[in-house]
Amino acid sequence: MTADSHARRPADPAARDLFEEMSRWPIFDPHSHIDPHRPAARDLDEVLGYHYYTELAHSSGMPAEAVAPGLAPRARAENLARHLGAIDNTVQHSWLIEIARTFHGFEPDRIGPDTIGGLYDAALREGAREGEAWDRRVWERSNLEAVFLTNEFDDPLEGWDTTRYVPCLRTDDLVLKLHQPGTIGRLKKATGVDVGDAASLREAVVKLFERFVSRGARACAISLPPDFAPRKAAFKRAVTPVRRAVQGLDLRPDEHAEVRATVFWMLAECCAEFRLPFDLMIGPIRNVYPAGVAGGRDLFDRRVSLHEYRELFNHFAGVTFPVSTLSPDAGAELVAYSWIFPNVLPMGHWWYSNVPAFIAADLKARLQAVPKVKLLGYYSDAYKLEFILPKFNMYRRILAETLAEEGIVGRGWSPERALEVAKVVLVDNPRRVFAPRGPGEPSAI
Amino acid sequence: MTADSHARRPADPAARDLFEEMSRWPIFDPHSHIDPHRPAARDLDEVLGYHYYTELAHSSGMPAEAVAPGLAPRARAENLARHLGAIDNTVQHSWLIEIARTFHGFEPDRIGPDTIGGLYDAALREGAREGEAWDRRVWERSNLEAVFLTNEFDDPLEGWDTTRYVPCLRTDDLVLKLHQPGTIGRLKKATGVDVGDAASLREAVVKLFERFVSRGARACAISLPPDFAPRKAAFKRAVTPVRRAVQGLDLRPDEHAEVRATVFWMLAECCAEFRLPFDLMIGPIRNVYPAGVAGGRDLFDRRVSLHEYRELFNHFAGVTFPVSTLSPDAGAELVAYSWIFPNVLPMGHWWYSNVPAFIAADLKARLQAVPKVKLLGYYSDAYKLEFILPKFNMYRRILAETLAEEGIVGRGWSPERALEVAKVVLVDNPRRVFAPRGPGEPSAI
Amino acid sequence: MTADSHARRPADPAARDLFEEMSRWPIFDPHSHIDPHRPAARDLDEVLGYHYYTELAHSSGMPAEAVAPGLAPRARAENLARHLGAIDNTVQHSWLIEIARTFHGFEPDRIGPDTIGGLYDAALREGAREGEAWDRRVWERSNLEAVFLTNEFDDPLEGWDTTRYVPCLRTDDLVLKLHQPGTIGRLKKATGVDVGDAASLREAVVKLFERFVSRGARACAISLPPDFAPRKAAFKRAVTPVRRAVQGLDLRPDEHAEVRATVFWMLAECCAEFRLPFDLMIGPIRNVYPAGVAGGRDLFDRRVSLHEYRELFNHFAGVTFPVSTLSPDAGAELVAYSWIFPNVLPMGHWWYSNVPAFIAADLKARLQAVPKVKLLGYYSDAYKLEFILPKFNMYRRILAETLAEEGIVGRGWSPERALEVAKVVLVDNPRRVFAPRGPGEPSAI
Repeated sequence: MTADSHARRPADPAARDLFEEMSRWPIFDPHSHIDPHRPAARDLDEVLGYHYYTELAHSSGMPAEAVAPGLAPRARAENLARHLGAIDNTVQHSWLIEIARTFHGFEPDRIGPDTIGGLYDAALREGAREGEAWDRRVWERSNLEAVFLTNEFDDPLEGWDTTRYVPCLRTDDLVLKLHQPGTIGRLKKATGVDVGDAASLREAVVKLFERFVSRGARACAISLPPDFAPRKAAFKRAVTPVRRAVQGLDLRPDEHAEVRATVFWMLAECCAEFRLPFDLMIGPIRNVYPAGVAGGRDLFDRRVSLHEYRELFNHFAGVTFPVSTLSPDAGAELVAYSWIFPNVLPMGHWWYSNVPAFIAADLKARLQAVPKVKLLGYYSDAYKLEFILPKFNMYRRILAETLAEEGIVGRGWSPERALEVAKVVLVDNPRRVFAPRGPGEPSAI
Repeated sequence: MTADSHARRPADPAARDLFEEMSRWPIFDPHSHIDPHRPAARDLDEVLGYHYYTELAHSSGMPAEAVAPGLAPRARAENLARHLGAIDNTVQHSWLIEIARTFHGFEPDRIGPDTIGGLYDAALREGAREGEAWDRRVWERSNLEAVFLTNEFDDPLEGWDTTRYVPCLRTDDLVLKLHQPGTIGRLKKATGVDVGDAASLREAVVKLFERFVSRGARACAISLPPDFAPRKAAFKRAVTPVRRAVQGLDLRPDEHAEVRATVFWMLAECCAEFRLPFDLMIGPIRNVYPAGVAGGRDLFDRRVSLHEYRELFNHFAGVTFPVSTLSPDAGAELVAYSWIFPNVLPMGHWWYSNVPAFIAADLKARLQAVPKVKLLGYYSDAYKLEFILPKFNMYRRILAETLAEEGIVGRGWSPERALEVAKVVLVDNPRRVFAPRGPGEPSAI
Repeated sequence: MTADSHARRPADPAARDLFEEMSRWPIFDPHSHIDPHRPAARDLDEVLGYHYYTELAHSSGMPAEAVAPGLAPRARAENLARHLGAIDNTVQHSWLIEIARTFHGFEPDRIGPDTIGGLYDAALREGAREGEAWDRRVWERSNLEAVFLTNEFDDPLEGWDTTRYVPCLRTDDLVLKLHQPGTIGRLKKATGVDVGDAASLREAVVKLFERFVSRGARACAISLPPDFAPRKAAFKRAVTPVRRAVQGLDLRPDEHAEVRATVFWMLAECCAEFRLPFDLMIGPIRNVYPAGVAGGRDLFDRRVSLHEYRELFNHFAGVTFPVSTLSPDAGAELVAYSWIFPNVLPMGHWWYSNVPAFIAADLKARLQAVPKVKLLGYYSDAYKLEFILPKFNMYRRILAETLAEEGIVGRGWSPERALEVAKVVLVDNPRRVFAPRGPGEPSAI
């Protein structure tokens, strides 16, 4: 029995065969929010607490207080279950059913007030009682090979197997919140550098990269708002704004822009020096809906263009940029930029774009117009291990259907040739692009 | 024989079964331009005069004078019929054929100079001779339950059954044309308030809401240009611009913007107070092509974002906003905003987006990512009753095909579960969201 | 045996029948970059040197030097062939295979280091040895009727059959580079006019049109960056900037904008006067990736709108504007503008939008919402004759599949009616819209 036995299979026979074969491959997941100290869920509340469920339930009428942190986990789960009926059409709900079936022997096709109790108990029996053994069981069952983490710059990076749970340096705070209380203090503490100006800031950043790379980090990552436009740092011009920022002084908008641009450029320079891919996640605006549930407050402005990144892509020809865009309608532009720039790679289908209708349209265009060696299939963005399998299965289904339709039927490919492309996209490229490399080694592309 | 007997059925058997069942349901149409005093067409000119036909025919070479208001109705119809061959590929032409077949016993699959005469006579026999009986026949045959109107603020709202033809307060003139000659006069006359400043303007607007709600209105609606950005009213700042506007003085651009924002915010406050959903129809720019036929002069600028509406959505958490966007490529953003904001509901597929290719892509994403209790299926936007059935049938076909493919095949739903979703989308949600509510009652979501 | 015998046929039987019939029709190609003195490839390097291959190979890791102009043609072809494996998923690669099979008897389904030698020899035997006879063979085999060229304004337009290779006046240099060294000199030389100010510039432009029309030109064309917005020329305001430009002086940004707008408006006036369609190709930004291979350096900013063109479309009601947009997500807006403006016609699917996934989505909407008499199917944009057939076959497949699904299955059309639409789109409309017309004759629409 393969790992995916509770996943829906494609209806089309050719696609189903491709899917079955993909189901036997290990999963390489180049972006997640997994906590390596506690990767799988200890109870069902940790599954249902995923922001997709709380925000969709809230959006359909559940008060945010129904899932407040102060409540008992079981109460939160029961509260949420009362609203699952309102969202049982969504693809996110289908992940939940696949988790319940695959990992907890659940049989119904919906979860509601009448079934939540039994499911909660089952999950608790397994997750809480087994603890680390449960982490291993989910890992094995999902056939995971590597799961990339999201590590704050001051994460000690200790206490886990970094070949499985691969560190990734997340840099939003450094770029976007350098001037906010705490950031500089954390940076000093993490690096031992007495950061006081642009030069010592750079010194601290280099120390971060040294530490991350020495502990197995294989990517640097950042999410950037739609109005951010990278530009070549002008260190002279940045001297004063950076000093004011590290001193925690209030910044004028133009000073803040200067600081953001300067720190971002420093990070790109370090990615070049340390041979790390720099994951760009373009689009989110934080806290657009402040009254939302945790994790469900961010949105975007669709008026964004990769043209703003031209200087970056040109200047850092040696840095690989796996790019995710948030607005679903921005996907076609990413196809064009990946087609032209050697160092721009389309990565996964992110957040509001991680919906089958958007993935399918996007993926077809990528397969038709971007060199196959540049396609970085998918990542889970998951907070708990259990989500990786159903999310990847969703993607594998779409990939199987697209390759069957576009490759086998449309271009007369053999199933083997279609699988060859699938393997490249799902396994070979992520392994190669995110492989550890020494200082002399060239980047993947 | 069901109402839709002359509609095309989907080819896929599962989709066809869903469609057949939907065809037995009543139609709840939450937005139209029907004249309740004369809802069905009295002659074929009133059908062919729909701007879709005149603008498409004009776009393919017909001079605007060929359908000038001064011509005899039969002459206009004959002139237009000579150009129908040029547009017989369009989905709008397919509505026309379905009307001719369903309501007038027409059999050919195209209408041209040779067949227009007989069809004109048949329609005249029924529409003009039967008069109100014809209105009732079209109503029954289409199995209509409720048809929302578009009522100017000074509409007397008298002389029809408002449970069938439901009033809806259209507010474009108040927001966008307050300063134009006539608007204030009409407002004074409609409310009896001597509008002279912001305070008395507010008083008048409240009176409008009172009158509309007392006469059965169940929504307030407005269409807004792409450059409009709602913002919290600053009544102090608005005092002078509003006074200048109500006095009919020329406004500077910044004053006009202040007036628009202020009046719009007042309307939203009244929607909160009177528990009315506020339909936002975002995107049109009026009179982009002034030489066009009536109703065929407006277009849009696709660079628009719902991010401009964040303050409105946050501030009026208690107001339900059914949102339509005009630019087809803006649909994906609406999915995301509906997914996060409890009070944002995706409504219908409007005007330039009301094309099967765009509806299908949009609908699939909505069904995958927006809670089903928030999906407000479709509205006809029709000017004559005859159009409601073919337009809803077009949507029902797409909904049936999407649910068959995405739900039954893709996720293993039973046909009953697929129909459950269809019912929610087409009937239950519109009934609930647009239900009359008392001042104490919460909004639908 | 029909011309397309090596093209993939659609799998669906109804679509296959439509495709087979279309394959018997002549190809009318209203935009290409063919050199009429040397239309077909003399060797395989001229095929593999197409920027699609060099840029995709470069994007997947091939150094630009591997295809440097200084290398021997065979060496370039061999270098490139080593990278074809990285891009053999792309639709561009499928054109290459169809060329190799149709024109050179190649049988494998991929081209690599092991097969490049034999293929190179075969192509050389035919192309180089046969010379003009090979041009004729490719022309016949592809069943070409007319191929439009891209002629610089100072092209002598001599030495070929202009009813086959139809001249088209390309005007990018005049509008965008008037002030650059050389442009004015070329213009003086081409027209004999001593250009010194706006009036003599206009005189020279009129002379260009006279010459082009007298030598059989049937279109004027220009590609415009996303930030270009046509506006009614104000010749008074333009006097000084134009004089500075023709004198080769440095221009301020506002002066350059004035010059661009003025010259563009002159061209539109000449199109009106000389009854030439004015092809607008909207979107490219040149040299976004300067380190790229030749032809592979341009990209776009997706934030572009046809709303910027409203004044042009209104003012020149008598000029036909076949419009192509570069950003794939801009296609839906073009549908709406073509639906309203009689003189706006959607033309082909261009460059980064010329990908089946984008074409299929776009084409379906065009067929549903734009009068069929306005649909200008496709153009090859090719540099060598061999590419016209596989590119048109790609489009014919999508057109056949769309008409089978949308027309035959979706609307109950007979195959004959579907073919009628296909014929209009592929052959009749281009012939009519680009027909030569005398000064008194009205434009096509």
